[in-house]
Amino acid sequence: MAHGAGGKATRRLIDGIIAPLLLPHVTEALGDSALVDVNGSGIAITTDAFVVTPLRFPGGSIGELAVNGTVNDIAVSGATPLAMVASFVLEAGLPMRVLEAEVRAMAQAASEAGIAIVGGDTKVVEHGKADQMYITTTGIGLLRPGLTLGPRSVRPGDKIVVSGPIGDHGITILLARGELDLEADLRSDTRSVLPLVDAMLSVAGAGVRWMRDPTRGGVATTLNELALDTGLGIHLVEEWLPVRDEVRGACELLGLDPLHIANEGQFLAIVAAEYAEVVPGTIIGEVKDEPAAAVLVTTGYGGSRIVDMLVGDPLPRIC
Amino acid sequence: MAHGAGGKATRRLIDGIIAPLLLPHVTEALGDSALVDVNGSGIAITTDAFVVTPLRFPGGSIGELAVNGTVNDIAVSGATPLAMVASFVLEAGLPMRVLEAEVRAMAQAASEAGIAIVGGDTKVVEHGKADQMYITTTGIGLLRPGLTLGPRSVRPGDKIVVSGPIGDHGITILLARGELDLEADLRSDTRSVLPLVDAMLSVAGAGVRWMRDPTRGGVATTLNELALDTGLGIHLVEEWLPVRDEVRGACELLGLDPLHIANEGQFLAIVAAEYAEVVPGTIIGEVKDEPAAAVLVTTGYGGSRIVDMLVGDPLPRIC
Repeated sequence: MAHGAGGKATRRLIDGIIAPLLLPHVTEALGDSALVDVNGSGIAITTDAFVVTPLRFPGGSIGELAVNGTVNDIAVSGATPLAMVASFVLEAGLPMRVLEAEVRAMAQAASEAGIAIVGGDTKVVEHGKADQMYITTTGIGLLRPGLTLGPRSVRPGDKIVVSGPIGDHGITILLARGELDLEADLRSDTRSVLPLVDAMLSVAGAGVRWMRDPTRGGVATTLNELALDTGLGIHLVEEWLPVRDEVRGACELLGLDPLHIANEGQFLAIVAAEYAEVVPGTIIGEVKDEPAAAVLVTTGYGGSRIVDMLVGDPLPRIC
Repeated sequence: MAHGAGGKATRRLIDGIIAPLLLPHVTEALGDSALVDVNGSGIAITTDAFVVTPLRFPGGSIGELAVNGTVNDIAVSGATPLAMVASFVLEAGLPMRVLEAEVRAMAQAASEAGIAIVGGDTKVVEHGKADQMYITTTGIGLLRPGLTLGPRSVRPGDKIVVSGPIGDHGITILLARGELDLEADLRSDTRSVLPLVDAMLSVAGAGVRWMRDPTRGGVATTLNELALDTGLGIHLVEEWLPVRDEVRGACELLGLDPLHIANEGQFLAIVAAEYAEVVPGTIIGEVKDEPAAAVLVTTGYGGSRIVDMLVGDPLPRIC
């Protein structure tokens, strides 16, 4: 299961087997979208399978997640959404009202994000060969001209910005499963980040160096990938991290780090220092030369610790 | 299960629930790809989930099918492939060598079809929540200028052409499951139809009115959709249908009609009469005014029968 959790095992699976064989021509670091040139227009394309359980949870559902997850991958690539397609794997016996509710949630989310769903596919497998439904969405977007988002644009001295509180989605899903004797007044943060990304780019333009949405594996995994891709040191200040009390409390009880918990409606940006104070979001740290290719968190007591990618799989099937 | 078989129940599911809610802006008949305008360039986009069982069968495998199925949807839309993305749902415990074999099959098929796989996603679900692996591929292609493929371009007098023998894929899968006491020297027809489509378009150009690949639900279902979309009568001549003896024999034993059996490496085209003799493939019939919105097969004995879409699900999970 760890191979699907978005952390180290996922990276080993993708870097070790899938990417070398399947993506031999892709030499750039893998971002949230791939880029394709179409008669001189840059097109971002991104695909994600959604297998979240339970299907419905406070703040969202699999259908809504499937649309916004893909919208967000397009958004943080610096592209504006053009169109989306959706493919369903349905378990035989799935009640029609369950399917209809998710299709409605998808339509609603697409409408709110301003993306047209233009096609799809439906397959049905035997009872016991899926868990109610899986949805894969693929989106394409038109790259804004003039942006050069990516690890190569990141420089020491740049600031690290996060759009809002971290860990809400993962902890919400964990609690929604009802396997823990824990309750909290918490909702998934799932939403389209497109308006916030638009705001950031209109304020800072090419001063935005890099964006990603820290879903599976959380902020720590996404920033470790950035550290590896740049060779730079990612410095976070623990007390600057926006974490709700409910998330912090659940993490303490469960021995988890909010930096490893999945988000669905947040994004990380590396922003040139001169713009960092004026873009939307919260500054959580700075890029430095050292330590090479690592994420370092400074704690409130003056100490510091290296935070690795997610290892193992404390939270499977959170998206 | 019938809802996923590609026939009437699938159309009810898609026309009844999914399309009206999810695709309210799509007023054109649903083809194998959707069309999106990107700064004046026409982009075809298509997605398919692959859930075939067994994963490997004579002539192909799920990975190869996942690439060629999407390449073919792009090809019959009159587009040249630009790029593909792939998303995997893996069952925990799947041997790495099984995954690696399918990834290699995908890479090989993509290389042969001349399409780059540019990105992907991997999710792992618990043992018993999938059947080894499901793959969703999404492809984009660049529409050739000057073509107006679609039901609206079809006219009475046009000829119906099929690229090669029908039913090979579906019967191969059925036999590969080993549930029937039947054997035949048969292979799936899975392949990229891109070279054949290229040849047809270079010979007939805008004389090609419409193309589709008759996968789930077979030739009968695809032509019934054309009949419904045009309101015209689709006349087939039974003795002109290219069907291998092995397929005909298996169908007779099982009470199936080769017209309802899935194909993976064939396509149907409606071609202006003046080009029908010179394009690659076999003429199997003609478009007429009557009977309205139906498919009629003339038998060798001078009789005729209406052939409906696939009803029920004799062959689940064939792609």
